[in-house]
Amino acid sequence: MNENEAMQLELLRKQMAILQENLDQFFMIINGMFIFFMQCGFAFLEAGSVRSSNTVNILMKNTLDVFVGSLSFFAFGYPFAYGRPGNSFIGHNNFFGANVQYFEKSVIANNQTLGGYETSSSYFANFFFQYVFAATAATVVSGAVAERADFSCYIIYSFTITGFIYPVGAHWVWSPDGWLNTGAGTGLSMQDYAGSCVVHVCGGMAALAGAKILGPRLGRFSDDGLDKPIPGHSVPLVSLGAFILLVGFLCFNGGSIQRISKNGDGLEVSLSVTNTILSGSAAGLSSMLTHRVHSMVKGKGKYWSLLMTTNGGLTGMVASCAGCNDIAPWAALLTGSVAGVVFVFARQFVLWLKIDDPLDAISVHLFGGTVGTLAAPILAIRGQTINGVSVGGPIYGGGVDAWRGVGWSLVGLFSIGLWSGLCCFTLFTTLDMVGLMRIPKSVEESGIDMQKHGEHAYPETFVRIIDDRPETPRKNKVVKRNVASALVDKSLPAITTSAWDGQHPSEAGSSTNGCIEDPTRLSPSTAYNRK
Amino acid sequence: MNENEAMQLELLRKQMAILQENLDQFFMIINGMFIFFMQCGFAFLEAGSVRSSNTVNILMKNTLDVFVGSLSFFAFGYPFAYGRPGNSFIGHNNFFGANVQYFEKSVIANNQTLGGYETSSSYFANFFFQYVFAATAATVVSGAVAERADFSCYIIYSFTITGFIYPVGAHWVWSPDGWLNTGAGTGLSMQDYAGSCVVHVCGGMAALAGAKILGPRLGRFSDDGLDKPIPGHSVPLVSLGAFILLVGFLCFNGGSIQRISKNGDGLEVSLSVTNTILSGSAAGLSSMLTHRVHSMVKGKGKYWSLLMTTNGGLTGMVASCAGCNDIAPWAALLTGSVAGVVFVFARQFVLWLKIDDPLDAISVHLFGGTVGTLAAPILAIRGQTINGVSVGGPIYGGGVDAWRGVGWSLVGLFSIGLWSGLCCFTLFTTLDMVGLMRIPKSVEESGIDMQKHGEHAYPETFVRIIDDRPETPRKNKVVKRNVASALVDKSLPAITTSAWDGQHPSEAGSSTNGCIEDPTRLSPSTAYNRK
Amino acid sequence: MNENEAMQLELLRKQMAILQENLDQFFMIINGMFIFFMQCGFAFLEAGSVRSSNTVNILMKNTLDVFVGSLSFFAFGYPFAYGRPGNSFIGHNNFFGANVQYFEKSVIANNQTLGGYETSSSYFANFFFQYVFAATAATVVSGAVAERADFSCYIIYSFTITGFIYPVGAHWVWSPDGWLNTGAGTGLSMQDYAGSCVVHVCGGMAALAGAKILGPRLGRFSDDGLDKPIPGHSVPLVSLGAFILLVGFLCFNGGSIQRISKNGDGLEVSLSVTNTILSGSAAGLSSMLTHRVHSMVKGKGKYWSLLMTTNGGLTGMVASCAGCNDIAPWAALLTGSVAGVVFVFARQFVLWLKIDDPLDAISVHLFGGTVGTLAAPILAIRGQTINGVSVGGPIYGGGVDAWRGVGWSLVGLFSIGLWSGLCCFTLFTTLDMVGLMRIPKSVEESGIDMQKHGEHAYPETFVRIIDDRPETPRKNKVVKRNVASALVDKSLPAITTSAWDGQHPSEAGSSTNGCIEDPTRLSPSTAYNRK
Repeated sequence: MNENEAMQLELLRKQMAILQENLDQFFMIINGMFIFFMQCGFAFLEAGSVRSSNTVNILMKNTLDVFVGSLSFFAFGYPFAYGRPGNSFIGHNNFFGANVQYFEKSVIANNQTLGGYETSSSYFANFFFQYVFAATAATVVSGAVAERADFSCYIIYSFTITGFIYPVGAHWVWSPDGWLNTGAGTGLSMQDYAGSCVVHVCGGMAALAGAKILGPRLGRFSDDGLDKPIPGHSVPLVSLGAFILLVGFLCFNGGSIQRISKNGDGLEVSLSVTNTILSGSAAGLSSMLTHRVHSMVKGKGKYWSLLMTTNGGLTGMVASCAGCNDIAPWAALLTGSVAGVVFVFARQFVLWLKIDDPLDAISVHLFGGTVGTLAAPILAIRGQTINGVSVGGPIYGGGVDAWRGVGWSLVGLFSIGLWSGLCCFTLFTTLDMVGLMRIPKSVEESGIDMQKHGEHAYPETFVRIIDDRPETPRKNKVVKRNVASALVDKSLPAITTSAWDGQHPSEAGSSTNGCIEDPTRLSPSTAYNRK
Repeated sequence: MNENEAMQLELLRKQMAILQENLDQFFMIINGMFIFFMQCGFAFLEAGSVRSSNTVNILMKNTLDVFVGSLSFFAFGYPFAYGRPGNSFIGHNNFFGANVQYFEKSVIANNQTLGGYETSSSYFANFFFQYVFAATAATVVSGAVAERADFSCYIIYSFTITGFIYPVGAHWVWSPDGWLNTGAGTGLSMQDYAGSCVVHVCGGMAALAGAKILGPRLGRFSDDGLDKPIPGHSVPLVSLGAFILLVGFLCFNGGSIQRISKNGDGLEVSLSVTNTILSGSAAGLSSMLTHRVHSMVKGKGKYWSLLMTTNGGLTGMVASCAGCNDIAPWAALLTGSVAGVVFVFARQFVLWLKIDDPLDAISVHLFGGTVGTLAAPILAIRGQTINGVSVGGPIYGGGVDAWRGVGWSLVGLFSIGLWSGLCCFTLFTTLDMVGLMRIPKSVEESGIDMQKHGEHAYPETFVRIIDDRPETPRKNKVVKRNVASALVDKSLPAITTSAWDGQHPSEAGSSTNGCIEDPTRLSPSTAYNRK
Repeated sequence: MNENEAMQLELLRKQMAILQENLDQFFMIINGMFIFFMQCGFAFLEAGSVRSSNTVNILMKNTLDVFVGSLSFFAFGYPFAYGRPGNSFIGHNNFFGANVQYFEKSVIANNQTLGGYETSSSYFANFFFQYVFAATAATVVSGAVAERADFSCYIIYSFTITGFIYPVGAHWVWSPDGWLNTGAGTGLSMQDYAGSCVVHVCGGMAALAGAKILGPRLGRFSDDGLDKPIPGHSVPLVSLGAFILLVGFLCFNGGSIQRISKNGDGLEVSLSVTNTILSGSAAGLSSMLTHRVHSMVKGKGKYWSLLMTTNGGLTGMVASCAGCNDIAPWAALLTGSVAGVVFVFARQFVLWLKIDDPLDAISVHLFGGTVGTLAAPILAIRGQTINGVSVGGPIYGGGVDAWRGVGWSLVGLFSIGLWSGLCCFTLFTTLDMVGLMRIPKSVEESGIDMQKHGEHAYPETFVRIIDDRPETPRKNKVVKRNVASALVDKSLPAITTSAWDGQHPSEAGSSTNGCIEDPTRLSPSTAYNRK
């Protein structure tokens, strides 16, 4: 080889290394975009599922999941989950982005070691990708505590879950140091590819703790224990959220490999995506049919419920997370079908416990996640890797090691469930004791939006309702006239919302003082809550 | 070359092959995500275009297009379309994912042959990418049959179109075995890059068959044949759907090359995307202007119609599918401009035929697809490949071979149109005869959502309407009071929707039995349907 | 090296060059998709922020930004901005896509020179990527002039901004020929990575000129100067738009490197994305808190405003554009925090100037962009490159050169602000003089949608309002009955919208002629505007 050729070969080697590094980051970032967009999906799934008088509140909460979550995960979450060095319980480096090298542009330099531990310029890509996962875990909770949790409570638990509770569980399973990953001497490694357990069981347990401690919404169960459902205000918004989540989940699972440059990566990504859509589809249909049959048997009529179908589909996708890269399509169909049925009965079970979960977040994430966590090792093709060799799942000749792997997933399931549940139980109990957990009864009755945010979701409808309602009792009629006159009388500021003007009806002048005390009493929510 | 260098060279060759394979799959998957999201676009285009009393129904239908479609395409559709071996009419392998090798991680192994036929680990990427195309073809139909097709009908035709009708047409044009692709001895190959004909003419003909056999919605045409339009319930939802479809179409066309690793791929992707947006833009503007002039001439006022502009734009994008990778930008502008005008008059033509197409799906997809199928070979730069050489299109010196290519596209257009039309005509006629085609008149009059799904799109509005409507006749007033009292009286379950509680107003206790017979009579749709 | 190995090496070199070229285009295109989708984000941010009687109008306008913008930018915009040869003020080649080579598939040929100037097959990828940026700049304006600008005005300014005003500024900073890029002899180069100045200051100044010349909406300020806010009609639509914009901005900044194949590209992309989300998050929270404190101090109540939080977050992302690839995360947090506070007070300042900006577009884009343009050079890590060497920012040892760089950014800020402001001021003044600027008072009072587009955003609500409003004065009652009877009397065409039927209420027959003169007087907007 002459000198020129040797140089060309060396250049090619560098270019190849650069391309591999860059592509892996590109892959993570672009999948991260779709996963980030799941926040929009959750926001609208939830916004449509609550009453219009609490819609701004739930949108605000989902917006803050993004904003608070990124700060919290940057400062504490990522360090606890993936900061190295770390012990088997928790990581502890890179707090507030410390000790991160950037602008070491040479690829070779990127993988050099610093103080004995690997540091890499892929920190930012990793951070973004892991952040969107953490935000997903946190956002699960908001659905379960909707329409009654206090705003401070939102901010505190959102900060804590993305900054501490979720990261610790993620460290256990996904960090090279974590005990569920290293096996703690068992030689096993927990199989949870995209987080059925790490993300969804964690989020689902937090949701359970929150919903349980908060108690049901006013009027959700009658005094003699009868179930009195409170419908949300917009099915189209729910469906919009669900469609966004469907595509988000495909990238959630498809992107979890976090690289595209190594042999077989493309196949693994494609297989994961295919299994996810098959599992979701099977679950959607099995939920739809199970709900229909169950309703008929219970004498509740024969309906093809959209809400059950979409939530069932999401449950199937949650269940596919853990094993989507290591099961055959038929196994994905099986996982989904089971998850769909489980969702319908889990929902009944949660209701039977008199726990009020406006979004069925517990049924979708906790139960769907549990199905997935157990299905993955049982249906695995490659299964556990012992001494560097894939031993195969139980049905692919894995034998005892395969079943030990199933047991290890059970250990992980209980550990993470317990960790998340205990932490959240403690957190929410504390918040409850200091009075930051639940909004006052008067706010809940009149709707959170106008009281806490000064913004009604649909200002024109809000005005029309006040304006038109014929059966309004006398005292309110006066209020109504005052508000209405504020709209007509051009000498007075019109009814409006806080940010559109920085001014609220309650400051609209003395002639409207009548509505200061309770400007939202006539909001739509009263139609359901009135006693 | 010393041994070390030889090893480096060999390693580089492997890495390059791996990277190419992985990138092609990454490219397909990520474009597939945007195309998958078009289901959300169609869902909201349709949801906004129907009355609020049928909105849950159309959202349910679009959700099932995703769920039923994936199962159907996995089991039968992909095998019929791309399963190899196959004959010139149909493929026949890989049913239910059979005979697919996965976890053969070596790239070399990936392209080995199995029983004489190529099998590749790119199966899953191909499956996902082709599935989102198939789902698009199926979803076109739902718009045309909206507000009157029975739920069973939806499921059956959705299964059949994604599982059989579309795949056969796709096989003809896009499989290496298909007769329109191989030329059946003519040496020609049909030019339909992204499916103006395969997807949109196929879907459009199915829509035509469905809308024709179903007949118009009640009250759509008066007894003496006058056109009595039924507006949808939300322009913002229509516009949301359209925006999602705009970006979806860019990936639909841009992704159709299905790889990014070969020489010129990047250029072809970029050219396709550019031509698609130019064609859509030209069409949107030409539709807007044509509609305005046409309305003025007909004495119907001068309006800048948003709905005409967006649907026109979509028509232009449909028309750009066939040739977007092989025409110059000026040709894309020309194609779009023509498509926009064609859309406006096609719409009038369909109305003149007394065919009721709530979404103008026939005008957009069948007519837009036809324009595109014919424009592609006429405006082509490279055109037909004869003996491995591009002969050029008619205006680029292609001569007789170029015109023969145009003729071959005509053959394809009629073949696929006829295939889809006949199959769907047979299917829908059969469904009609066994009574599964159309919902009962009473359901259509009162709205499908409450009757079939037990869910109203906007529960609060539903309640308000029942509650407030002053001109309600006496009998209904009683119903109204009963329903209203159910909301107020805390001893009774509140009005609600099926999945939010698994319980329906009709079971709300004896005092509300009055509304069992017809709980939806007062839904908004009656404002339009009342006779 | 034997012959076989030499061939392999040569093949690898070609494959590598092809892969790099293709990947860069893939990267640009796929990021461009998310940025393109920002048009949907802006559309819904704006649609929710206007009254329902002007919603179709604003959606139409955003749709045309896409359609008119692509044609304008293809014909003139790209040539002016990036056409080469060009002088330091403006580019001048590739008008209407002229002189672009395509189907030169060899990578080597791609970078050959044509007439002494470089031409590349990456034209189309560049065009698409730059087009989505240009459309963003144009769309900023629509928010500021909403609810009162004439339709012709929309089309003309949209065409001019994407075709001329924005491209000239972009040429200055981003073309290799532009004077702010080359430094005009100073040796400096303006630091504006993703367009805080080029896109947002440009768009923001245009918005300021438009809003100022148009004057406030009717009733926005009382005769004695009191602020009378006009709330939009749907917070959920605003929030939907904001979520889409959040993900769009991540790609806006992350994609601005426009390639992924060179050393360090992956890191730069990831850093940009991370800084953008951190800056946005900090800004959202600082806006939320500042607004709350400011409202309390002013005695306007204590609210957690969603609209302030989301707009604040967007301001932070705008501010992060200029320097996101060259600042540390702590600097991104600082930039965002400042931007959030600036947003709240800028908003008050604009109000104090009696400028009516329904979307706060001036505060978000002009002020946010200004913060970013100045923050970037001050907080830069690498900063100016003098003689090929990064000298470092002021706080990283850059010294005098670093401060000269800050000065050069100031020069750029004023130049582009002045250019955009003067051009738009001239344009809008001219439009105003010839009467194309503002809709007639009667149209503004009754709502633009029915008058100009023949389509109401929510046809069913529109009907209900006419139908139900009890306090309608006598004359209108007649109108109401006529319209209502048109719905009931099956011998008459129903009320409807233009595109759903090409027919408008005003042509509904003689018995409804009473409503011809003013069919929209009863639209929801009157609830706010009534005098």
